[in-house]
Formats: sequence, structure tokens, C-alpha cells
Amino acid sequence: MSILAVGSIAFDNIATPSGRADNVLGGSATYFSLAASYFTDVAVVAVVGEDFSAEHENVLKKRRINTEGIEHASGKTFRWGGQYLDNLNEAKTDFTELNVFEKFQPRIPASCRNCEFLFLGNIHPSLQAAVRLEMDHVRMTGGDTMNFWIQGARKELVETLKLVNVLLINDGEAKMLAGEKNLPRAAQKVLALGPQAVVIKHGEYGATIFFREGAFGIGSHPFRAPALPIDEVKDPTGAGDSFAGGFMGYIASQPELNREVLKRALFYGGVMGSFAVETFGTERLQSLTREKIEARFQIFRELTHIE
Amino acid sequence: MSILAVGSIAFDNIATPSGRADNVLGGSATYFSLAASYFTDVAVVAVVGEDFSAEHENVLKKRRINTEGIEHASGKTFRWGGQYLDNLNEAKTDFTELNVFEKFQPRIPASCRNCEFLFLGNIHPSLQAAVRLEMDHVRMTGGDTMNFWIQGARKELVETLKLVNVLLINDGEAKMLAGEKNLPRAAQKVLALGPQAVVIKHGEYGATIFFREGAFGIGSHPFRAPALPIDEVKDPTGAGDSFAGGFMGYIASQPELNREVLKRALFYGGVMGSFAVETFGTERLQSLTREKIEARFQIFRELTHIE
Repeated sequence: MSILAVGSIAFDNIATPSGRADNVLGGSATYFSLAASYFTDVAVVAVVGEDFSAEHENVLKKRRINTEGIEHASGKTFRWGGQYLDNLNEAKTDFTELNVFEKFQPRIPASCRNCEFLFLGNIHPSLQAAVRLEMDHVRMTGGDTMNFWIQGARKELVETLKLVNVLLINDGEAKMLAGEKNLPRAAQKVLALGPQAVVIKHGEYGATIFFREGAFGIGSHPFRAPALPIDEVKDPTGAGDSFAGGFMGYIASQPELNREVLKRALFYGGVMGSFAVETFGTERLQSLTREKIEARFQIFRELTHIE
Repeated sequence: MSILAVGSIAFDNIATPSGRADNVLGGSATYFSLAASYFTDVAVVAVVGEDFSAEHENVLKKRRINTEGIEHASGKTFRWGGQYLDNLNEAKTDFTELNVFEKFQPRIPASCRNCEFLFLGNIHPSLQAAVRLEMDHVRMTGGDTMNFWIQGARKELVETLKLVNVLLINDGEAKMLAGEKNLPRAAQKVLALGPQAVVIKHGEYGATIFFREGAFGIGSHPFRAPALPIDEVKDPTGAGDSFAGGFMGYIASQPELNREVLKRALFYGGVMGSFAVETFGTERLQSLTREKIEARFQIFRELTHIE
């Protein structure tokens, strides 16, 4: 099993109450693929500029991530600068330089066209749809989006959602997308747009997966996984993409695709998100082992399970 | 085993997006004792005015709650009016008429002086301390408080916390009490003030219990229980006190007092809170059965447990 992930590769300038870091390798595809690489094979489709060195690419290659789909364009890589003030769940953007990302046209290498799992990172919904339509044997498509597209490209997003099996968004995005303040009702409205399941992330409180009636198994009961209570969140950047990487990576590693797998995947999403925020950038995600991941999975389990 | 609960009895005027209700029987002692009554014997210490009729008292008596400790004073019962707008986690107070509550001096009936469990509802911390010091055989004291006392009676509250085994507060109160924005760090600072455990309630996201190292068992890992995703919260008033009633009631019903009991109690707290918000006032809490409670406990379990 393997996952194709399309998204951004970026250099970030980040300031948090714990400090700051500049020119840090980031982007949704980077965080996602590193997190997923501990579970399954991953191929990345993204675009970078001339400032993206072999050393940067080696961060991915060392985790055996297929980088054939990374297009090297002339110009600079996408750059983002932001700061987290009191609320670590929300970044204040200082600048966004799209650079080579502005004209990004995802090109799927022949070696990845048969991937069974697809993750559509947070890019324009029309590009997300185009990628999905080029793939021939997808068993499950996961998708991300954000307020910017919900407000600015709603029509295209609604079309794309018909192609997405599991949408991963946060509370605010779900409520905005649904036009509904009550979360369970918002989830139902999102499911009515197409996805068979929606994962709604609550930041430090964990995440809930809502299923369409009968999708992936019997019933329509939601399931909730915790986040780890963390004394110091050094850098929340990429937590959502790392969550998605753990979630999708675990699913792709399993022979079956059912509710029990999706529930466990929600735990692995939280686990990978909890690692991601321990350092600035992707540092922590580069140096994990499956043993460390399993040990933290047990902590998540003990955090929520009664005898 | 039995619980003595001290707190307020009130008549509330409540407006929520689901409608409004006036002169509804409420107050922290009312919600707490009704919720706890499904698990154990409960006695209430509170004060009411001449407008509190035998019919009102019967709401408690029907649940076999000991009302000897309810003082009937001349004047009117405590009245509160509030509305919940967009945010169901936070009420906007329209009016507060303390009435007979202003000069409330809790008097513990002789029949309740030997209760092994004590719940100090949200009243002035000095009154909470006085009640605790009058009790002779308490195995565990649970306590509630609010922003009003944290800001206005901090010194007295800090003294009272030395007498409280388990404090139940919400996220905002914990952060205010600790002067710390990170929740796990805030929890540690609250524990340093005296309690062996602190239950921090996250509204629709559930609650986390943080233990002082070694208290009630080995280790210092926290534990998190969910709240039920609810399509329509009709009236959130009393959810916190109903949570406390389920939590303390379950604990009082168990022969031992250890972490496993406290974890299960956190689930029962969520269960009773989820019932409380289904109707205006205490209506739902008056008509439950232990079977309905156990059925919902199973839903909470399925919501969070993997195989």
C-alpha cells in the first residue's frame, strides 16, 4: 500500500512563546509525508524553487519518501511567516510569498499513478479535484482545506468534496463550511456534501470523526480521540498535516478499511500531531521510530480508556 | 455511603437559542443533588425563601434527597436570569437577586454530620471552609468555585483549597486561578494549592482529571473523558453541577477510592451533564433511571474506546 500526497513545500519563519525559527523547512506535503512515512510508502507531489537544496530533499529521502513528483521550478520556494501569540491554535500570518507555488500544476509521476491512497493537502480545490481525477485505483481519498477556500472558492470546493472520502478540518472550518454553529449538526451538513466521514480537529482537545450512516461499517455514532495534554507546545505549525499523515499512514498500512481502523487511525493522527509540536519545524518528525510511536499510542490509550 | 451537598437553590429565568423558561427551579445544590441521587443518598444544605413551595421541595424528596438542611428564611429565594447567545458555554447574566442567599449561613443537620462525602458548591469560599471544618468523618471533599471568587476572594479561596480533595472547575477558571495559560501547567499549579486532583471541564469537549503525583494511586498521568456530541443543547444551565453530581455520586457509591473509580466517575459526570442539557431546568434529571444512565455510559465508552 502507498500514499500519494499533494500539497505545499515551504520555508517558514515562525515565532511562538517558546522562541523563533527562520527558513525552516515546512509546508503541508512535508509534514504529512514525514508523519505518514513511519507507516507506509509515501510519494510527494509539490513544487519547489531554486532555494530548495539537495540537503532539503534529503530530509524526505532519508525517510524513503518518493520525491519524483517534486517539480523544481525557477524562482523561490513558497514562504510563509507567522506568529502564535496567546492562542497556540491560531497563527497570525506576517507574510505569504507564494513564489513558485502560485503557478503550481501538480504532475503525478507514472510511478505513483496507481497509489491506492491519496491525500489532497490544502491547495486550491480545483487542483485537488484534478489530481483525484488523474488517479486510477484510489481506495480512499483524504482531503484538507481551509477558511480561505471555503470563503473564496466555495463552488469549486463543493465539487471537490464529492471526490473526497474523508475530509479533515478543524472546528471553525467545519462550522464555516456548513454555515452551522452546532458541531454535530455542522458535521452532518458536511457529510451531505459528499464525504463518507469527516474528521473534525479540536486542537488541544483532540478530534472527532463523524460517519455518514452506514459508511465504513454499521451505524452513525461518532468517535472521539484525545490530544495529549502538553506542558509546552513549542511550535504548532504543521500539527494538522502531521495529524493527517498519521491518520492516513496508519489506514494505508492496514489490510482492511473499516471503522475500527479509522478509530485507531484517529489515535495515530493525534500521536503524530503531538510529536510535531515538540520542536520547531519538522525536526521531531525526522527522528522518530515506530517503537516511540507505539509507546505514545499507549499513553493516548491510557489517557482515555477505563478498565 | 452518603453525600452532603451545600450550595444554592434558585429560580432561574433562562433564554437559549432553543427557547426560554422562567421561574425554573435551579441552583447548584438542586442540580447536584438530583444528579447524585441516582447513585447514592444525598442531603442538601441550602437556603430558600417563602416562594419555595412544598411542591418545589417535593422535586427533591421524590428522589429521596434529605431536605432537612434546607433553611426556610423570610423573603424571596435566590433568583438568576441569563441568556446563552452564540456560545452555549457562556451565559450572559441579565440579573442576579441574592435575596435570602445574601445572608446564607449553612447549618448542617445532625443527621448529616457523619456523611463521608462532601460537595462544596459554588458559594463564598469562607462558607465552604466553615462547612468542611464542621464535618467529622469526611473521606473526600469535592469543591467548585468560579471567576467571581477567584478574583474577589482569592485569599479565602486559597485557604479553602487546602481542605478540598478534588476541585472541579472549567478551563477558564483553572487558567485564571493559576495565572497560567497552558492547561496542563495550570493544572499543576492548582494542585500545588492543595487538592489531590483537579477536574477541568472543557464544555463540549469533555473533561480532564489531573492527579497530584501519587494521589489516589501510582503516577501522575491525567485522564480524559468525552462529552457527548449533542445536536441540540436546549439549556446548558446546571451542566457543571450535574457533572459534579454524577462524578461525586458514583464515587460515593463505590467501596474503594482509587484512580480507576475516579476515571469512571469522570465518565458518569459527563453522562449526567449530557442529560441535564436536554431540557430546560432540572426536568430531565427528575425522570431518569439507572438503566438509562448505564445505557448512556456505554455510548460514552463506545465514543472513546478502541478494541
